[in-house]
Amino acid sequence: MAPFKHKDLLDVGQLSVEDLETILQTAKSFDEINHRAVKKVPTLKGRTVVLFFAENSTRTKTSFDMAGKRLSADTFALGTSGSSINKGESLKDTGLTLQAMNPDVIVIRHSSSGAAEYLAKLLPCHIINAGDGWHAHPTQALLDFYSLSHAWNGNFAGKNLLILGDIAHSRVARSNISLLRKLGVNIRICAPGTLLPAGVDTWPCEVSTNLDKAVEGMDAVMCLRLQLERQQAGLLPSLAEYSRRYCFDRRHLEKANPGAVVLHPGPMNRGLEISDAIADSKDCLVLNQVSAGVAVRMALLYLLIMNKQNGESDAADS
Amino acid sequence: MAPFKHKDLLDVGQLSVEDLETILQTAKSFDEINHRAVKKVPTLKGRTVVLFFAENSTRTKTSFDMAGKRLSADTFALGTSGSSINKGESLKDTGLTLQAMNPDVIVIRHSSSGAAEYLAKLLPCHIINAGDGWHAHPTQALLDFYSLSHAWNGNFAGKNLLILGDIAHSRVARSNISLLRKLGVNIRICAPGTLLPAGVDTWPCEVSTNLDKAVEGMDAVMCLRLQLERQQAGLLPSLAEYSRRYCFDRRHLEKANPGAVVLHPGPMNRGLEISDAIADSKDCLVLNQVSAGVAVRMALLYLLIMNKQNGESDAADS
Amino acid sequence: MAPFKHKDLLDVGQLSVEDLETILQTAKSFDEINHRAVKKVPTLKGRTVVLFFAENSTRTKTSFDMAGKRLSADTFALGTSGSSINKGESLKDTGLTLQAMNPDVIVIRHSSSGAAEYLAKLLPCHIINAGDGWHAHPTQALLDFYSLSHAWNGNFAGKNLLILGDIAHSRVARSNISLLRKLGVNIRICAPGTLLPAGVDTWPCEVSTNLDKAVEGMDAVMCLRLQLERQQAGLLPSLAEYSRRYCFDRRHLEKANPGAVVLHPGPMNRGLEISDAIADSKDCLVLNQVSAGVAVRMALLYLLIMNKQNGESDAADS
Repeated sequence: MAPFKHKDLLDVGQLSVEDLETILQTAKSFDEINHRAVKKVPTLKGRTVVLFFAENSTRTKTSFDMAGKRLSADTFALGTSGSSINKGESLKDTGLTLQAMNPDVIVIRHSSSGAAEYLAKLLPCHIINAGDGWHAHPTQALLDFYSLSHAWNGNFAGKNLLILGDIAHSRVARSNISLLRKLGVNIRICAPGTLLPAGVDTWPCEVSTNLDKAVEGMDAVMCLRLQLERQQAGLLPSLAEYSRRYCFDRRHLEKANPGAVVLHPGPMNRGLEISDAIADSKDCLVLNQVSAGVAVRMALLYLLIMNKQNGESDAADS
Repeated sequence: MAPFKHKDLLDVGQLSVEDLETILQTAKSFDEINHRAVKKVPTLKGRTVVLFFAENSTRTKTSFDMAGKRLSADTFALGTSGSSINKGESLKDTGLTLQAMNPDVIVIRHSSSGAAEYLAKLLPCHIINAGDGWHAHPTQALLDFYSLSHAWNGNFAGKNLLILGDIAHSRVARSNISLLRKLGVNIRICAPGTLLPAGVDTWPCEVSTNLDKAVEGMDAVMCLRLQLERQQAGLLPSLAEYSRRYCFDRRHLEKANPGAVVLHPGPMNRGLEISDAIADSKDCLVLNQVSAGVAVRMALLYLLIMNKQNGESDAADS
Repeated sequence: MAPFKHKDLLDVGQLSVEDLETILQTAKSFDEINHRAVKKVPTLKGRTVVLFFAENSTRTKTSFDMAGKRLSADTFALGTSGSSINKGESLKDTGLTLQAMNPDVIVIRHSSSGAAEYLAKLLPCHIINAGDGWHAHPTQALLDFYSLSHAWNGNFAGKNLLILGDIAHSRVARSNISLLRKLGVNIRICAPGTLLPAGVDTWPCEVSTNLDKAVEGMDAVMCLRLQLERQQAGLLPSLAEYSRRYCFDRRHLEKANPGAVVLHPGPMNRGLEISDAIADSKDCLVLNQVSAGVAVRMALLYLLIMNKQNGESDAADS
């Protein structure tokens, strides 16, 4: 495997195709461990992983927590409530304070785009972006990549993916498009006009507002979660109207290519962006994605901390 | 010891007298570990225990957390705040998502009766019911059983137990009655009429509304916690009135049998359902119950995960 | 090293100069571990450390959590939300309940002065006061002592320290004055009159309300955090006015002795009690203090639990 020459994981744009392959192979070996009775290896014993989630997220935080503990790292969760953020401390001072406790990795989720990059430049420890504003969610894109690699037998070039839903506000969409374009996947996006991003014509994607047509010829469909507050913001006439036009159902899947699969980052709004019939079908990979998430995050913690054939100085390792 | 042939612990009704004996003996060995300087054994190293508490509970959650960690399992707490439940995800999807992370056990507390059973049928991992609505709280009944076994030298048949207080809304009462009747304990319940359950005449208990008379001949008295919101709901004339008639005090205990003990699931409302004199006396087992709770939960985690001579398939263990 | 003859750490007043030296040397050895790649030793494996924080505090709680885990102890955090405290349970009953789970140490932060001492008298386990009301914050004073020892090459007698800001409501100030006076440090305090404590004339300190004069001749300046609610309470004319007169800036530091250092317990209100120029300068020890905090807390956990050549009975250790 190629060495992993990165201090941080901020955005998938930084990753080469070789990096993706390294992450995939590493994650596969950890996935195997996750299916054992004894789901633990001593690899990161004595390492400190801080989970700094300034936005709520049970599933991503728990996934990183499991990833760290199954590698024998010590994990420390800082949340929004009860944290110094509430006391008006700046991100800079919170970051410097955490660094002073000598963490190996800080995993950060933050509502501000660029928060992870800011910490990465400020601090010598490794930073993993667990979602920053609408900007990026690289570990989600990597676990989607992992799931699709399994579904597509590792073949990405020329495959067709539809991303459906609230593209405008989705860091998941942005990170997936960036990663999968690099592998030669053709991407179509479909949403009502109000949920398409400004400047969408410059995106490397086909754009559609008609789901029935957009799904034709697709090898996978990635449904996005619709934040219910979008309706209050006046971006949707009504949730019923949205559901009628954009809830992904079996009749849509039948228009896709044979063997097409459906992804969703979770948690699902059943009946709104995805139908029960799809959500509960074997074509839906949502649970594979969750499982892949733990393995991919183990791989990233491992590669960032241990794979230092990259000229990076880490005196403590010597 | 008899093998423990259960995938889940949902209700004490599922347990045979042999199962109770197995749990008791296993808990005793763990109780001994809990009193050592080094309170840890490697038994469940690499096992994943999820603590999914959709209702708040410090003491039960901490008790399970200690039980898991003292067996070297990795524990993961999901709370109400910051969890996907707040995002409208169904119990089904939360359960499936957790399963996708390959836990060995999910401990669940939920306001809906039947929530634990629902997960148990849905998921292959082990489920422990840590309290579901008014339905059941089997680990509480088991720790009460453990404490009473010590107080009564293991003799249950023919003993007399009074359960006092808000029977109607108490899963603790229901689980204790189910367990202790199986062992031949005679049970009397005492409460104001508004806190007796509908259909109480079908319960296998004597019923009384007069504490002074009800306590006569008892070998143990189990006080229940009174939720203060019962008064707002109009079920009590006033807390002062309740205290005057049902607060368990030394003058009541003196009417019980010699050597009678007092239990309380905690946290206590001193002066409301139990007097200071009783709460602080050596006759009150409330702290033994807490201590027993850690040991009993260690026993259950151990028996569910490790004691697989039961035909259950667990490929990962082979 | 002298044996550490204390069951609890409640206040720095209990510590002899020999104790301080023991803590310092022990913390130094742990500080070295904290700068390794593998930041973990098996010293407290199987020990139970409860973090009972009835007041919010990310940095202190995380610091103790890291201290415990890097010594291989199991840590359990009880917070304000979701804890039995919300159910009206008394501190006594919460303490007794925790004791029943056989902890080795309970670390307590509480809004009531004396809460830690109360638990220490009530319970056989070790108690560490992590801040009680305005009374004491001994581990903060000890980490400040650690940082100053480094800055001053271990020489304290005759040094001059200015404590600046909200002295009246500061347990940090009280604990530091108590500790540093014992080592012969001359202490001056400076604050607007409304933030000086009642009876300040009996304190073993010089008192000033003029920062420009107070800083002259100082070898260190300890800025305190200003709680913004002090203004609402009418103790400050305006935050701008406070900042103009008491925000510690470079022009003040220039009047101090050469090599003078600046401390702050964090989190900092930049521009209010400390200027950006100072906060970001190499003269400011705030991050050294954070780092020292983990090492000092490791030392205290270690000394309380393991250093039992003190006649204290701990049958479990034999």
